[in-house]
This record gives sequence, structure tokens and C-alpha cells, in this order.
Amino acid sequence: SVSKRIVVLPGDGIGPEVCSEAVRVLRAVGDRFGHEFTFDYQLMGACAIDAVGTPLPDVTLEACRRADAVLLGAIGDPKYDNDPTAKVRPEQGLLGLRKSLGLYANIRPITAYDQLLEHSPLKAERIQGTDILIFRELTGGIYFGEKGRSEDRASAYDHCTYHRDEILRIAHLAFKAAETRRHKLTLVDKANVLETSRLWRETVQSIAPQYPSVALDYLFVDNAAMQIILNPRQFDVMLTENMFGDIISDEASVIAGSLGLLPSASIGDGSALFEPIHGSYPQAKGKGIANPIATILSAAMLLDHFNLPEEADCVRDAVQHALDEGVVTPELNPAVVHTTEQVGSFIAYAV
Amino acid sequence: SVSKRIVVLPGDGIGPEVCSEAVRVLRAVGDRFGHEFTFDYQLMGACAIDAVGTPLPDVTLEACRRADAVLLGAIGDPKYDNDPTAKVRPEQGLLGLRKSLGLYANIRPITAYDQLLEHSPLKAERIQGTDILIFRELTGGIYFGEKGRSEDRASAYDHCTYHRDEILRIAHLAFKAAETRRHKLTLVDKANVLETSRLWRETVQSIAPQYPSVALDYLFVDNAAMQIILNPRQFDVMLTENMFGDIISDEASVIAGSLGLLPSASIGDGSALFEPIHGSYPQAKGKGIANPIATILSAAMLLDHFNLPEEADCVRDAVQHALDEGVVTPELNPAVVHTTEQVGSFIAYAV
Ligand SMILES: CC(C)[C@H](C(=O)O)[C@@H](O)C(=O)O
Ligand SMILES: CC(C)[C@H](C(=O)O)[C@@H](O)C(=O)O
Repeated sequence: SVSKRIVVLPGDGIGPEVCSEAVRVLRAVGDRFGHEFTFDYQLMGACAIDAVGTPLPDVTLEACRRADAVLLGAIGDPKYDNDPTAKVRPEQGLLGLRKSLGLYANIRPITAYDQLLEHSPLKAERIQGTDILIFRELTGGIYFGEKGRSEDRASAYDHCTYHRDEILRIAHLAFKAAETRRHKLTLVDKANVLETSRLWRETVQSIAPQYPSVALDYLFVDNAAMQIILNPRQFDVMLTENMFGDIISDEASVIAGSLGLLPSASIGDGSALFEPIHGSYPQAKGKGIANPIATILSAAMLLDHFNLPEEADCVRDAVQHALDEGVVTPELNPAVVHTTEQVGSFIAYAV
Repeated sequence: SVSKRIVVLPGDGIGPEVCSEAVRVLRAVGDRFGHEFTFDYQLMGACAIDAVGTPLPDVTLEACRRADAVLLGAIGDPKYDNDPTAKVRPEQGLLGLRKSLGLYANIRPITAYDQLLEHSPLKAERIQGTDILIFRELTGGIYFGEKGRSEDRASAYDHCTYHRDEILRIAHLAFKAAETRRHKLTLVDKANVLETSRLWRETVQSIAPQYPSVALDYLFVDNAAMQIILNPRQFDVMLTENMFGDIISDEASVIAGSLGLLPSASIGDGSALFEPIHGSYPQAKGKGIANPIATILSAAMLLDHFNLPEEADCVRDAVQHALDEGVVTPELNPAVVHTTEQVGSFIAYAV
């Protein structure tokens, strides 16, 4: 039995509601398996700007640094959305947290659930059985390069840079994941145009011999954006840099039929953060209609990270049970209305 | 009646075959409407590397400069594909041509043809009626910024820069197009992260009052990558920078059900180039199975550019007729086999 300290950042919009359900499920896992999970709630995002004037207060960052893992709901508020040039914005909290905690690998599983095929914009026969694991580099590239304006403000620039070591650490994670899966790794880049992509290619290629069971291939990002929709089953593990990963992983999320099901993990050397891929969905706030499953599955990834695979599978099985029984929020089953809390409680009970 | 000089760059793979059919259709238009089109064939791409050692020979560039328009087939050969670090590559010809001719606006219509809904990976009810016009900036951004390596080659960089004037000229084109369509313009950017995106936003916003009938909105590129698949009908004209445009426009192409139908125009102040969006498809070379429609519809855009809208519509109607009659290449109708030439001749005859 283990004892772990989890910082919870409920954030904005529906973030607090979905976090409550994930915490409920984690408590149930703790009870059933005899683990001690303690939860430390902290401010991040628009709620932190409102409360203390900054999206990532020092006390939040310190708590995250000392924690065994961080569980995040969602951040963002419409009052900041319409003005990306505002000096203080919720996203800065998230980007600052990623950088400060060194969360260099964002990992997103994309699964086509049989029960939800009808909800996908894609034809069922194209996506059935899809099971992709995307590794997106999260602390480098154009997100964190130098950026600015010319003196007259008429020109702007953003610099994209990568060092070999930044590529190596996430590439090793991706290769290792491929070894435990279907032994295929696809690097997505734009090596016909970008020097950074050429560095990605040669770096990933240089360690491929260490993973002889994994077949490595390459796809230009424009082609990848087509292939993900045309034939998603061809992919096993995908690896890409920060900006391409932002686009490709959000695009791939449509396969699942609902954003409300997709979890993610962001891993660093010392820290790890788990969050649903959906946003703060402010229109739904407080209505009890937010789907908690993406956050609950993020909690399952957190359990994997704690090296508790049995517990993690137990959560995933409970989610599967909820889907099988149709105990889901209205966007997936408008006929029988289940609230966020009812779905969370059902899953917690099934754990 | 007009007299125009068209440079044809057949390029590689299926390029020559599809160009032949587009030229056949343009000749038919010339005959029917009494115009004089002359065609000047030049080398570009892998065929130019093979013949003269460089992907964009000076004589080709000069011919393009003096022409009234350029019609391009496709470039690329597998012998260069697997080595994006090779010193001389076909893409350099295309990028060089875009830059030298100042082709700053790449324009791609995305249409869901009723006859082809079954071929799309997307559910018919989601895409029926889709009609999007994408404006992609083509001579700026990270494609053409400074790029290189650190001395030890362990770091690489690519600089993305934009000047206000580069944004203004394409933004005006996009607004004007929206005025003649459904009066909606969506700017796709990543203004929550990139300074260049913030410059795009403020620049586009600054001219919006000149187009009071057009509703301008903004979408972050990751969200756009989802929305294009979830609900493509929401879009009218989309505007974006070079790299995002590369990804988003290829992604959007899946809606049509076949890459073989999608044309594009690349417009500059003095020059204009028209090409199908598909690649050189080397496996199909010489087999008579390549779909010539994308190139023929590119020729229709060329006629629009010559200010010959009646002629352009006439070509589009002839294409529609071929689709209605099922006179299409095998990927669209495996039951009745029509060759590239048969499809081209049918359309030329129907003009
Ligand atoms: C909010 C935004 C800065 C962020 C990103 O672009 O990384 C988000 O889109 C994500 O993918 O987590
Ligand atoms: C071949 C390549 C350099 C090119 C690009 O990225 O612009 C192609 O993908 C395109 O979209 O025309």
C-alpha cells in the first residue's frame, strides 16, 4: 500500500466539477486497495487571476513541485479568450507550469470506443479499433522560443529551436511505449522544409537501433493531418514536436466521438500532471452536464504513473462499465439524463 | 477574344498525364470561345534535377515570369522522398518558384460533391453542402525564415517572421472573396501563444471595418483542426499563415472524398500558378488511372484569373457532368473503368 500526495488544480469553468468526480474515484480506489491519497487543492488559471492577480501563484507552483502528481481540471474563461493580447492570461499559468515542472512529454491515448462510434463524425468502419498513443513534446519549440516585435511593431517573430537532448528524452519514451504496444512508431515532422524537423529525424533515427523490435517511419505533418482521418488504424505510437502535436492531437480527438472521454498525461523527470484534453467549457459550468470521464481516465493514467497498474485498469474497467450501461452525460445519451455527479458516483462505486 | 501564354510544368509522376488532360480542356475552351492559348512546356522538380541538375532551372523561371499563367502538374520522386536532408530536392523548385514569382496567396476551394459523399471518411450528413475557400499565405512565415544549426549541430532553429504588409495583401484578398460568398471570414492562428499570430490578428482586425458586410471571427489552430472535421459547414472563407495553412488545407481535403478533385491557385502581384493539390503519386505513373479532374479544375481557376468566368463555369459544368455520368477514374468508380485520357476527353468534349 502506498501513500501519495496529489495536488488538485480544479481551474475554471467545468474544471472543478470534473475534478470532484475524479477525486471521488481516486478515493474509492484508495479505500478498495488500501492506499492513502491526500488531496491538496490549489489555484491556477483564470480563478487564480481573479483571486490573486496571477495565473500561476508561487504557492501553487511550490505545492506542485512537492507533490507526487498533479491533477488538473481545465483552465480558461471567456473574458480572456477574446483578447489574446491581454497582459495576464490563464494559458500563461499552464505554459508556466509545464516549463517550471519540466513536463516535456504530453501523452494522449486516442481510442475509438465501440459504444460511441455513432457519435464520431467519421464513418464507423474507418475508425473501429483505432488505438493511437500520441507523444507531443511539451516544453520546447516555437512555444518557448524567443518572440517579439520590431521597434515599429510592424514585424513579429517567433523562434523555433530544438536541442538534440530535448528530442532524445521524449523519443526514448515513445520507443519504449511502442515496445509494449504494436511495435510501430511514426515521427511526424516537416523535414522537407524545417531544419528543426531534420534534427528530429536524425536524432530519432540515431536511437532506433536500440529498439530493434520497433518499426520507425516518418510522415510529413500535412500528410499526417490527412492520414489520421483517412485511416487512423494505421497508427500505433506517434511522436512529434510541440506545435504539430498541439494540432494533430486535437484533430485526432474527433475520432473518439466526444472530447469528454480523452485523458492526457504530461510527464517530466520529477513531476507529472494529468488532465482531460477538453477545455473549461464555461457555458456548461454548474449545470451538471459536464462529462467527468476524461478526468477520471486521466486519474487512471495517474495511477499508472504511481506504478499501480491493477488500480488503473480497475478504473478503466469501471468507465467501460458505465459506457456499457449507458450511464453517461447527456451529450452521449440525451434520452436518459445522468448528471456529472451520477456518472462519477457510478464509476466510483464500480471500482 | 483573348490571347494568353501559359507555361506548363508537367513535373513528375502523374504530373504529365494530368497536365495533358487540362491542356486538352483548355484547348477545347479556346476553340469554343475563340481564344488563343499557347502552351510552353518547361522542366521543374525531379525531372529537372535529372535533366539539368537543378529543380528550378533559370530558363523555367524566366518563362514563368513572362507567362500570363503557370499550370503545374505535380513534383516529387521517391528517390528524394526518403532523404529530406539531400542537398538538391524537388520541393526546392516549388518553394523557389513561389518565392521568385511572389505567389503570396494559395487559394483552395474545398467542396463536398454530392456524388462523392460515399467516398469521404466523414459521415455524409456532416459534410453535405460544405463549401470552404481557404487562403493560405505562401511566401512568408517559418518556411522562408532563417534556419540553421549550432556549430556542434546539436541544436537547430527555424525562425518564423511576418510583416504587417505580408498579412495585409492576402487579408484583403480573403475579405474580398468573402464579400462575394457567404460573408464570413475565419482567421486561424495561435494568438494565445505566438507573437506572429497576434500580429495577424491585429492586422486583420484593423482592416475589417473596410468590409462591413463580412463577419470576422478567430479560431485557434488546434480548435480549427477539430472544427473542420466536426462541422465543416460552419466555414465560408478561412485565412491563415503558411505552416498552419499547409496542415489545415490538407486536412480539409479529406472532406471531398478524393484528393483527385481538389484544385488550387497561387496568386502573386504579377504571376499566378495553378495546380492540383495532390502529389506526384509515382506508383500510378503511366497507368492511366490518375484522376485529371483536380488539374482540370485548376485550369478553371486559371480561366477565372484571366477574367473569363463564363469559360471557367463551362469547365466546371463539364466536370460536374462527368461526375453525374460516372465518367471518372477507378478510385471513384471501380466498376466501369475510365482512363485518365477518357475522363479528360469526355470533359473537353462537354465544354
Ligand atoms: C491553452 C494552450 C496554450 C494549450 C497549448 O497550445 O498547448 C492547449 O491548446 C493544449 O493543447 O494544452
Ligand atoms: C512540398 C511541400 C514543400 C509543400 C508545402 O509544404 O508547401 C506542399 O506540401 C504544399 O502544400 O504545396
